[in-house]
Amino acid sequence: MAARGKYDRSVVHAILDECLVAHLAVALPDGPRVMPTTFARVDEVVYVHGSVANRTFREASGAAVCLEVTILDGLVLARSAFHHSMNFRSVVVYGTATAVTDPTERRLALDAIVERAAPGRAAAARPPTESELRSTLVLSIPLIEVSAKVRTGGPIDDEEDLSWPIWAGVIPLHLESGEPLTF
Amino acid sequence: MAARGKYDRSVVHAILDECLVAHLAVALPDGPRVMPTTFARVDEVVYVHGSVANRTFREASGAAVCLEVTILDGLVLARSAFHHSMNFRSVVVYGTATAVTDPTERRLALDAIVERAAPGRAAAARPPTESELRSTLVLSIPLIEVSAKVRTGGPIDDEEDLSWPIWAGVIPLHLESGEPLTF
Repeated sequence: MAARGKYDRSVVHAILDECLVAHLAVALPDGPRVMPTTFARVDEVVYVHGSVANRTFREASGAAVCLEVTILDGLVLARSAFHHSMNFRSVVVYGTATAVTDPTERRLALDAIVERAAPGRAAAARPPTESELRSTLVLSIPLIEVSAKVRTGGPIDDEEDLSWPIWAGVIPLHLESGEPLTF
Repeated sequence: MAARGKYDRSVVHAILDECLVAHLAVALPDGPRVMPTTFARVDEVVYVHGSVANRTFREASGAAVCLEVTILDGLVLARSAFHHSMNFRSVVVYGTATAVTDPTERRLALDAIVERAAPGRAAAARPPTESELRSTLVLSIPLIEVSAKVRTGGPIDDEEDLSWPIWAGVIPLHLESGEPLTF
Protein backbone atom coordinates (compact mmCIF):
# COMPACT_ATOMS: atom_id res chain seq x y z
CA MET A 1 0.00 0.00 0.00
CA ALA A 2 2.94 2.26 0.64
CA ALA A 3 3.37 4.09 -2.63
CA ARG A 4 -0.25 4.99 -3.13
CA GLY A 5 -1.29 5.42 0.48
CA LYS A 6 -2.86 8.73 1.42
CA TYR A 7 -3.96 9.62 4.88
CA ASP A 8 -5.32 13.09 4.43
CA ARG A 9 -8.60 13.30 6.31
CA SER A 10 -10.33 15.38 3.63
CA VAL A 11 -9.43 12.80 0.98
CA VAL A 12 -10.87 10.03 3.15
CA HIS A 13 -14.07 12.01 3.73
CA ALA A 14 -14.51 12.90 0.07
CA ILE A 15 -14.19 9.28 -1.05
CA LEU A 16 -16.60 8.04 1.62
CA ASP A 17 -19.10 10.77 0.77
CA GLU A 18 -19.07 10.04 -2.97
CA CYS A 19 -19.19 6.25 -2.94
CA LEU A 20 -22.62 4.67 -2.48
CA VAL A 21 -21.70 1.10 -1.58
CA ALA A 22 -19.31 -0.14 1.08
CA HIS A 23 -17.91 -3.63 1.48
CA LEU A 24 -18.06 -4.83 5.07
CA ALA A 25 -15.85 -7.74 6.07
CA VAL A 26 -16.11 -9.77 9.22
CA ALA A 27 -14.34 -12.94 10.27
CA LEU A 28 -17.10 -15.46 10.92
CA PRO A 29 -16.30 -18.71 12.70
CA ASP A 30 -16.48 -20.52 9.37
CA GLY A 31 -14.33 -18.04 7.49
CA PRO A 32 -14.22 -14.45 6.30
CA ARG A 33 -17.32 -12.88 4.83
CA VAL A 34 -17.69 -9.65 2.89
CA MET A 35 -21.01 -8.11 1.96
CA PRO A 36 -22.02 -4.97 0.09
CA THR A 37 -23.96 -2.45 2.12
CA THR A 38 -25.21 1.11 2.03
CA PHE A 39 -23.56 3.40 4.53
CA ALA A 40 -23.11 7.01 5.56
CA ARG A 41 -20.37 9.04 7.16
CA VAL A 42 -21.22 11.50 9.92
CA ASP A 43 -18.16 13.44 11.10
CA GLU A 44 -15.61 10.79 12.09
CA VAL A 45 -17.97 7.80 12.14
CA VAL A 46 -19.25 5.47 9.44
CA TYR A 47 -22.70 3.98 9.95
CA VAL A 48 -24.07 0.85 8.32
CA HIS A 49 -27.45 -0.72 8.90
CA GLY A 50 -29.19 -3.97 8.26
CA SER A 51 -31.93 -6.24 9.39
CA VAL A 52 -31.57 -7.74 12.87
CA ALA A 53 -32.23 -11.02 11.02
CA ASN A 54 -29.04 -10.61 8.98
CA ARG A 55 -26.43 -12.95 10.39
CA THR A 56 -23.45 -10.99 9.09
CA PHE A 57 -24.61 -7.77 10.71
CA ARG A 58 -25.32 -9.57 13.98
CA GLU A 59 -21.88 -11.19 13.94
CA ALA A 60 -20.25 -7.85 13.06
CA SER A 61 -21.78 -6.20 16.13
CA GLY A 62 -19.00 -5.88 18.68
CA ALA A 63 -16.50 -7.56 16.38
CA ALA A 64 -13.41 -6.47 14.51
CA VAL A 65 -14.45 -5.44 11.02
CA CYS A 66 -12.93 -4.00 7.89
CA LEU A 67 -14.95 -1.64 5.72
CA GLU A 68 -13.75 -0.79 2.24
CA VAL A 69 -15.10 1.55 -0.43
CA THR A 70 -13.71 1.91 -3.93
CA ILE A 71 -14.55 4.32 -6.72
CA LEU A 72 -13.34 3.13 -10.11
CA ASP A 73 -12.16 6.10 -12.18
CA GLY A 74 -10.63 4.45 -15.21
CA LEU A 75 -8.91 1.58 -16.94
CA VAL A 76 -5.19 2.15 -17.41
CA LEU A 77 -4.00 0.48 -20.60
CA ALA A 78 -0.24 0.22 -20.68
CA ARG A 79 2.01 -1.02 -23.45
CA SER A 80 3.10 -3.98 -21.32
CA ALA A 81 0.60 -6.45 -19.89
CA PHE A 82 2.35 -6.09 -16.53
CA HIS A 83 1.74 -2.35 -16.17
CA HIS A 84 -1.98 -2.46 -16.86
CA SER A 85 -3.76 -0.90 -13.93
CA MET A 86 -6.83 0.98 -12.82
CA ASN A 87 -7.37 4.51 -11.66
CA PHE A 88 -9.35 4.41 -8.46
CA ARG A 89 -9.93 6.02 -5.10
CA SER A 90 -10.42 3.71 -2.14
CA VAL A 91 -10.71 3.87 1.61
CA VAL A 92 -10.18 1.07 4.09
CA VAL A 93 -11.36 1.37 7.68
CA TYR A 94 -10.41 -1.06 10.43
CA GLY A 95 -12.16 -1.07 13.76
CA THR A 96 -14.71 -2.58 16.04
CA ALA A 97 -18.30 -2.25 14.89
CA THR A 98 -20.51 -1.15 17.75
CA ALA A 99 -24.29 -1.54 17.82
CA VAL A 100 -25.80 1.91 18.21
CA THR A 101 -28.48 1.86 20.90
CA ASP A 102 -29.06 5.54 21.64
CA PRO A 103 -32.34 6.45 19.85
CA THR A 104 -31.09 9.89 18.79
CA GLU A 105 -27.90 8.53 17.29
CA ARG A 106 -29.82 5.74 15.59
CA ARG A 107 -32.12 8.24 13.87
CA LEU A 108 -29.16 10.40 12.93
CA ALA A 109 -27.47 7.39 11.34
CA LEU A 110 -30.57 6.15 9.52
CA ASP A 111 -31.41 9.65 8.27
CA ALA A 112 -27.84 10.05 7.00
CA ILE A 113 -28.11 6.77 5.09
CA VAL A 114 -31.42 7.83 3.48
CA GLU A 115 -29.87 11.19 2.60
CA ARG A 116 -27.29 9.36 0.48
CA ALA A 117 -30.08 8.50 -1.96
CA ALA A 118 -31.21 12.11 -2.33
CA PRO A 119 -30.62 15.24 -0.22
CA GLY A 120 -33.69 16.20 1.78
CA ARG A 121 -35.11 12.73 1.48
CA ALA A 122 -34.92 11.85 5.19
CA ALA A 123 -37.16 14.77 6.14
CA ALA A 124 -39.61 14.17 3.29
CA ALA A 125 -40.07 10.41 3.60
CA ARG A 126 -42.46 8.70 5.97
CA PRO A 127 -40.37 8.34 9.13
CA PRO A 128 -39.54 4.92 10.56
CA THR A 129 -42.03 3.35 12.96
CA GLU A 130 -41.06 1.86 16.30
CA SER A 131 -41.44 -1.60 14.80
CA GLU A 132 -39.22 -0.75 11.82
CA LEU A 133 -36.60 0.69 14.16
CA ARG A 134 -36.67 -2.45 16.33
CA SER A 135 -36.00 -4.61 13.29
CA THR A 136 -33.00 -2.51 12.23
CA LEU A 137 -29.47 -2.97 13.49
CA VAL A 138 -27.29 0.13 13.25
CA LEU A 139 -23.53 -0.29 13.57
CA SER A 140 -20.95 2.44 13.97
CA ILE A 141 -17.31 2.20 12.96
CA PRO A 142 -15.06 5.08 14.01
CA LEU A 143 -12.67 6.62 11.47
CA ILE A 144 -9.59 5.97 13.58
CA GLU A 145 -7.60 3.34 11.75
CA VAL A 146 -8.29 4.48 8.20
CA SER A 147 -6.36 4.98 5.01
CA ALA A 148 -7.05 6.07 1.47
CA LYS A 149 -5.41 4.91 -1.72
CA VAL A 150 -5.61 6.93 -4.90
CA ARG A 151 -4.25 6.18 -8.35
CA THR A 152 -4.55 8.80 -11.07
CA GLY A 153 -2.87 9.54 -14.37
CA GLY A 154 -1.65 7.55 -17.30
CA PRO A 155 0.13 4.22 -17.65
CA ILE A 156 3.66 4.00 -16.31
CA ASP A 157 5.48 1.96 -18.90
CA ASP A 158 9.09 0.97 -18.86
CA GLU A 159 11.29 3.19 -21.02
CA GLU A 160 12.06 0.36 -23.44
CA ASP A 161 8.34 -0.32 -24.06
CA LEU A 162 7.41 3.19 -25.14
CA SER A 163 7.75 2.28 -28.80
CA TRP A 164 5.67 -0.90 -28.48
CA PRO A 165 3.13 -0.58 -31.30
CA ILE A 166 -0.14 -0.29 -29.39
CA TRP A 167 -2.15 2.59 -28.06
CA ALA A 168 -1.68 3.28 -24.37
CA GLY A 169 -3.74 5.54 -22.18
CA VAL A 170 -6.72 5.69 -19.89
CA ILE A 171 -10.37 4.91 -20.49
CA PRO A 172 -12.15 7.08 -17.92
CA LEU A 173 -15.09 5.54 -16.08
CA HIS A 174 -17.73 7.17 -13.97
CA LEU A 175 -21.07 6.30 -12.45
CA GLU A 176 -23.78 8.03 -14.45
CA SER A 177 -27.37 8.49 -13.36
CA GLY A 178 -30.19 8.06 -15.86
CA GLU A 179 -33.69 9.49 -16.06
CA PRO A 180 -35.70 8.72 -12.91
CA LEU A 181 -38.13 5.83 -13.38
CA THR A 182 -41.62 5.89 -11.91
CA PHE A 183 -43.41 2.58 -11.42
CA MET B 1 -30.18 -13.40 1.68
CA ALA B 2 -33.04 -15.79 1.12
CA ALA B 3 -35.54 -13.67 -0.73
CA ARG B 4 -33.13 -12.23 -3.23
CA GLY B 5 -30.79 -15.19 -3.55
CA LYS B 6 -30.22 -16.50 -7.04
CA TYR B 7 -28.05 -19.45 -7.85
CA ASP B 8 -28.39 -19.68 -11.60
CA ARG B 9 -24.93 -20.26 -13.02
CA SER B 10 -25.48 -17.96 -16.00
CA VAL B 11 -26.50 -15.11 -13.69
CA VAL B 12 -23.35 -15.62 -11.61
CA HIS B 13 -21.17 -15.64 -14.74
CA ALA B 14 -22.81 -12.55 -16.23
CA ILE B 15 -22.29 -10.51 -13.07
CA LEU B 16 -18.67 -11.61 -12.70
CA ASP B 17 -17.99 -10.87 -16.37
CA GLU B 18 -19.46 -7.37 -16.22
CA CYS B 19 -18.01 -6.12 -12.95
CA LEU B 20 -14.44 -4.81 -13.07
CA VAL B 21 -13.52 -4.77 -9.38
CA ALA B 22 -13.83 -7.55 -6.82
CA HIS B 23 -13.54 -7.26 -3.05
CA LEU B 24 -11.37 -9.97 -1.58
CA ALA B 25 -11.70 -10.69 2.13
CA VAL B 26 -9.32 -12.71 4.24
CA ALA B 27 -9.18 -13.26 7.98
CA LEU B 28 -5.76 -12.03 9.02
CA PRO B 29 -4.44 -12.83 12.51
CA ASP B 30 -5.19 -9.24 13.54
CA GLY B 31 -8.69 -9.14 12.07
CA PRO B 32 -10.58 -9.31 8.79
CA ARG B 33 -9.26 -7.43 5.80
CA VAL B 34 -10.98 -6.64 2.51
CA MET B 35 -9.24 -5.15 -0.48
CA PRO B 36 -10.36 -4.17 -3.96
CA THR B 37 -8.74 -6.09 -6.80
CA THR B 38 -9.01 -6.71 -10.49
CA PHE B 39 -10.03 -10.23 -11.40
CA ALA B 40 -11.18 -12.46 -14.22
CA ARG B 41 -13.41 -15.48 -14.53
CA VAL B 42 -12.31 -18.41 -16.68
CA ASP B 43 -14.95 -21.12 -16.82
CA GLU B 44 -15.67 -22.04 -13.20
CA VAL B 45 -12.66 -20.31 -11.65
CA VAL B 46 -12.03 -16.73 -10.57
CA TYR B 47 -8.44 -15.50 -10.76
CA VAL B 48 -6.98 -12.57 -8.87
CA HIS B 49 -3.40 -11.37 -8.95
CA GLY B 50 -1.13 -9.14 -6.97
CA SER B 51 2.43 -8.43 -6.07
CA VAL B 52 4.24 -11.11 -4.11
CA ALA B 53 5.09 -8.21 -1.79
CA ASN B 54 1.40 -7.68 -0.98
CA ARG B 55 0.75 -9.08 2.49
CA THR B 56 -2.97 -9.63 1.95
CA PHE B 57 -2.41 -11.67 -1.20
CA ARG B 58 0.30 -13.72 0.51
CA GLU B 59 -1.97 -14.38 3.50
CA ALA B 60 -4.86 -15.27 1.20
CA SER B 61 -2.81 -17.94 -0.52
CA GLY B 62 -4.02 -21.27 0.82
CA ALA B 63 -6.52 -19.58 3.12
CA ALA B 64 -10.30 -19.38 3.30
CA VAL B 65 -11.39 -16.28 1.44
CA CYS B 66 -14.57 -14.54 0.43
CA LEU B 67 -14.73 -12.68 -2.87
CA GLU B 68 -17.60 -10.31 -3.56
CA VAL B 69 -18.55 -8.25 -6.59
CA THR B 70 -21.41 -5.78 -6.76
CA ILE B 71 -22.85 -3.82 -9.66
CA LEU B 72 -24.97 -0.88 -8.54
CA ASP B 73 -27.93 -0.43 -10.90
CA GLY B 74 -29.97 2.22 -9.17
CA LEU B 75 -31.16 4.06 -6.11
CA VAL B 76 -34.61 2.98 -4.98
CA LEU B 77 -36.46 5.90 -3.41
CA ALA B 78 -39.48 4.74 -1.48
CA ARG B 79 -42.14 6.80 0.25
CA SER B 80 -41.02 5.48 3.64
CA ALA B 81 -37.45 5.90 4.87
CA PHE B 82 -37.49 2.22 5.82
CA HIS B 83 -38.14 0.92 2.31
CA HIS B 84 -35.37 2.86 0.60
CA SER B 85 -33.12 0.40 -1.17
CA MET B 86 -30.77 -0.11 -4.05
CA ASN B 87 -31.03 -2.07 -7.24
CA PHE B 88 -27.93 -4.15 -7.59
CA ARG B 89 -26.47 -7.41 -8.81
CA SER B 90 -23.92 -9.08 -6.59
CA VAL B 91 -22.02 -12.34 -6.34
CA VAL B 92 -20.34 -13.80 -3.29
CA VAL B 93 -17.83 -16.64 -3.60
CA TYR B 94 -16.49 -18.59 -0.64
CA GLY B 95 -13.55 -20.91 -0.97
CA THR B 96 -9.89 -21.52 -0.50
CA ALA B 97 -7.60 -19.35 -2.59
CA THR B 98 -4.87 -21.45 -4.18
CA ALA B 99 -1.63 -20.07 -5.53
CA VAL B 100 -1.43 -20.98 -9.22
CA THR B 101 2.00 -22.39 -10.01
CA ASP B 102 1.52 -24.02 -13.41
CA PRO B 103 3.05 -21.60 -15.96
CA THR B 104 0.35 -22.21 -18.56
CA GLU B 105 -2.47 -21.58 -16.12
CA ARG B 106 -0.67 -18.52 -14.78
CA ARG B 107 -0.46 -16.98 -18.26
CA LEU B 108 -4.08 -17.92 -18.93
CA ALA B 109 -5.12 -16.13 -15.74
CA LEU B 110 -2.98 -13.04 -16.33
CA ASP B 111 -4.10 -12.77 -19.94
CA ALA B 112 -7.73 -13.05 -18.84
CA ILE B 113 -7.24 -10.21 -16.35
CA VAL B 114 -5.64 -7.97 -19.02
CA GLU B 115 -8.48 -8.83 -21.41
CA ARG B 116 -10.93 -7.30 -18.91
CA ALA B 117 -9.45 -3.88 -19.75
CA ALA B 118 -9.96 -4.33 -23.49
CA PRO B 119 -10.58 -7.38 -25.67
CA GLY B 120 -7.50 -8.38 -27.64
CA ARG B 121 -5.26 -6.49 -25.28
CA ALA B 122 -3.41 -9.54 -23.91
CA ALA B 123 -2.18 -10.52 -27.36
CA ALA B 124 -1.26 -6.96 -28.36
CA ALA B 125 0.56 -5.86 -25.22
CA ARG B 126 4.22 -6.54 -24.49
CA PRO B 127 4.09 -9.95 -22.79
CA PRO B 128 5.27 -10.39 -19.21
CA THR B 129 8.94 -11.12 -18.64
CA GLU B 130 10.21 -13.91 -16.39
CA SER B 131 11.05 -11.34 -13.75
CA GLU B 132 7.57 -9.78 -13.90
CA LEU B 133 6.00 -13.23 -13.64
CA ARG B 134 8.15 -14.09 -10.62
CA SER B 135 6.96 -10.97 -8.82
CA THR B 136 3.29 -11.76 -9.44
CA LEU B 137 1.15 -13.97 -7.25
CA VAL B 138 -1.84 -15.53 -9.02
CA LEU B 139 -4.61 -16.99 -6.89
CA SER B 140 -7.50 -19.14 -8.05
CA ILE B 141 -10.85 -19.45 -6.31
CA PRO B 142 -13.23 -22.09 -7.67
CA LEU B 143 -16.88 -21.19 -8.27
CA ILE B 144 -18.21 -23.92 -6.01
CA GLU B 145 -19.75 -22.15 -3.04
CA VAL B 146 -21.21 -19.18 -4.84
CA SER B 147 -24.43 -17.22 -4.85
CA ALA B 148 -25.86 -14.22 -6.61
CA LYS B 149 -28.26 -11.63 -5.29
CA VAL B 150 -30.26 -9.41 -7.61
CA ARG B 151 -32.68 -6.61 -6.81
CA THR B 152 -34.59 -4.97 -9.64
CA GLY B 153 -37.73 -2.91 -9.98
CA GLY B 154 -39.36 -0.10 -8.08
CA PRO B 155 -39.80 0.65 -4.40
CA ILE B 156 -41.99 -1.70 -2.39
CA ASP B 157 -43.93 0.60 -0.14
CA ASP B 158 -46.53 -0.38 2.39
CA GLU B 159 -50.09 0.01 1.13
CA GLU B 160 -50.83 2.78 3.61
CA ASP B 161 -47.84 4.85 2.43
CA LEU B 162 -48.81 5.00 -1.23
CA SER B 163 -50.44 8.39 -0.80
CA TRP B 164 -47.48 9.87 1.09
CA PRO B 165 -46.79 13.15 -0.74
CA ILE B 166 -43.34 12.53 -2.21
CA TRP B 167 -42.12 11.13 -5.48
CA ALA B 168 -41.05 7.50 -5.35
CA GLY B 169 -39.18 5.56 -7.98
CA VAL B 170 -35.75 4.55 -9.14
CA ILE B 171 -32.76 6.61 -10.21
CA PRO B 172 -30.88 4.28 -12.58
CA LEU B 173 -27.11 4.20 -12.30
CA HIS B 174 -24.56 2.74 -14.63
CA LEU B 175 -20.83 2.86 -15.19
CA GLU B 176 -20.15 5.01 -18.24
CA SER B 177 -16.87 5.18 -20.12
CA GLY B 178 -15.56 8.49 -21.37
CA GLU B 179 -13.29 9.44 -24.27
CA PRO B 180 -9.94 7.63 -24.06
CA LEU B 181 -7.16 9.83 -22.72
CA THR B 182 -3.67 9.77 -24.16
CA PHE B 183 -0.80 11.01 -21.99
